[in-house]
Amino acid sequence: MDSKNTVVTTIFNGISFSQEEINFIYDRFTKIHIEKGDVLITPNTDVNHQFYVFSGCLRAFFNDTSGKEHTVQFAIKDWWITDYASYFNLEKSMLTIECIKDSVVYKIEKEDFEEIYELYPKVHFFIRKKLERGYASSFIRILKNLSQTATERYLQFLEKYPDIEKNVKNYHIASYLGITTESLSRIRKKNLKN
Amino acid sequence: MDSKNTVVTTIFNGISFSQEEINFIYDRFTKIHIEKGDVLITPNTDVNHQFYVFSGCLRAFFNDTSGKEHTVQFAIKDWWITDYASYFNLEKSMLTIECIKDSVVYKIEKEDFEEIYELYPKVHFFIRKKLERGYASSFIRILKNLSQTATERYLQFLEKYPDIEKNVKNYHIASYLGITTESLSRIRKKNLKN
Repeated sequence: MDSKNTVVTTIFNGISFSQEEINFIYDRFTKIHIEKGDVLITPNTDVNHQFYVFSGCLRAFFNDTSGKEHTVQFAIKDWWITDYASYFNLEKSMLTIECIKDSVVYKIEKEDFEEIYELYPKVHFFIRKKLERGYASSFIRILKNLSQTATERYLQFLEKYPDIEKNVKNYHIASYLGITTESLSRIRKKNLKN
Repeated sequence: MDSKNTVVTTIFNGISFSQEEINFIYDRFTKIHIEKGDVLITPNTDVNHQFYVFSGCLRAFFNDTSGKEHTVQFAIKDWWITDYASYFNLEKSMLTIECIKDSVVYKIEKEDFEEIYELYPKVHFFIRKKLERGYASSFIRILKNLSQTATERYLQFLEKYPDIEKNVKNYHIASYLGITTESLSRIRKKNLKN
C-alpha cells in the first residue's frame, strides 16, 4: 500500500507538508482501483468531484448530435480529470470519462478541496498554477488546431502524451486529432520513414 | 475621475475591503485610455500583464499560417484580457489584441497581481473562481463548436455578448463564429423573421 506521505507529496509535488497536514489532506481523498472499461462519469449529470490519476490511463470523450465521438482528453499519471463544465457549475456534464487501462485514481469531493484551499494557501497557489496552465493549454490547442496540419498535431500529441500509444486504440487517437484512422495510419507511416 | 473605491470594488465585485487595502490594490493598477485602432498586444512577444476592461471593447485575434484571421475573444466591460499562453509562461504570445471602441482599461503586471494574492487570500479565491469559469467556458466552447450549427453558435454569441453588435464589424463576428460574412447575413435575416 502507498504510504500517506508518498501519495500526498506525489499529488502536490514540490510542496512541503507537516505530518499533520499530510494526514488531513490524505483523509480527504478516496483511493479507487478501476479496470479497463469502467465508466467514471456520464453525460447530463451533476459532477462534484474530480480524479487524480496515480497510475493507468483514462479517456474523456464527447458525443456530438450526430453520434460521432470526439476524444477531448487522455489522463495519464499525474493528471487531473473530471467534467469541468459541471464541476465549476456552468452546465450539466457533457463528457463520458472511461478507464482505458487498469488505473489507480484518488477521488476528491469539491467541498473537501475547497476546505483544503482555505486551510492551506500553499495548496491553493499550487492548484491555481495548474489551472492557469490548463487554461492556457486549452487555448493554445484551439489556436493550433486552426493553423496546424494533421501531421503537426500528431507530433504534438506524441510530445504531450509520451508512451501513451501502447494503451490507446487508434480510433481514440484519431478522434482526439480530429482525423480518420486511415489518415492516422498514413501520417504514422510517413513519420517512420523520416 | 473614478474614485479608488469605485474602481477596486468594480474590479473585485462582491469582496469587502478596508480603505488601506483599496489604496494598496488601486496603486498596483495603471489606468489607460485607449482609442479605437490602438493595439495593446502583438504576437511573438513576452506578455507579463493583463488588462481589466472598465469600459469599451477590445478584440483578440489570431492569424493562421495562411494569413486568415480568427477572432478568439471580445472583451467588454468587466472582462479580463491578455495573451494567456504567454502570461502563464507557456509560449510567446500568439494573439493580437486591439481596441475596437474607445476604452478605459486598467493594466496590472503579473508580479503585482501575485503580490496581491499573497497578501489577500480573498482576492486569490475570487480570481481562481474567475479562472475556473474561464477554463470551463473555453472547454464548453470547443465541445459546442463540434456539435452546434452556425445559427446556434450565433444565438449563443448574442447571449454571451449582449449589445456588442453595434460596436463590432460583421467580419469580426463571422470570424469569431468560424463562418463567412455571407452566412452571417443569411442567419441574421432568418433570425429576424422568426
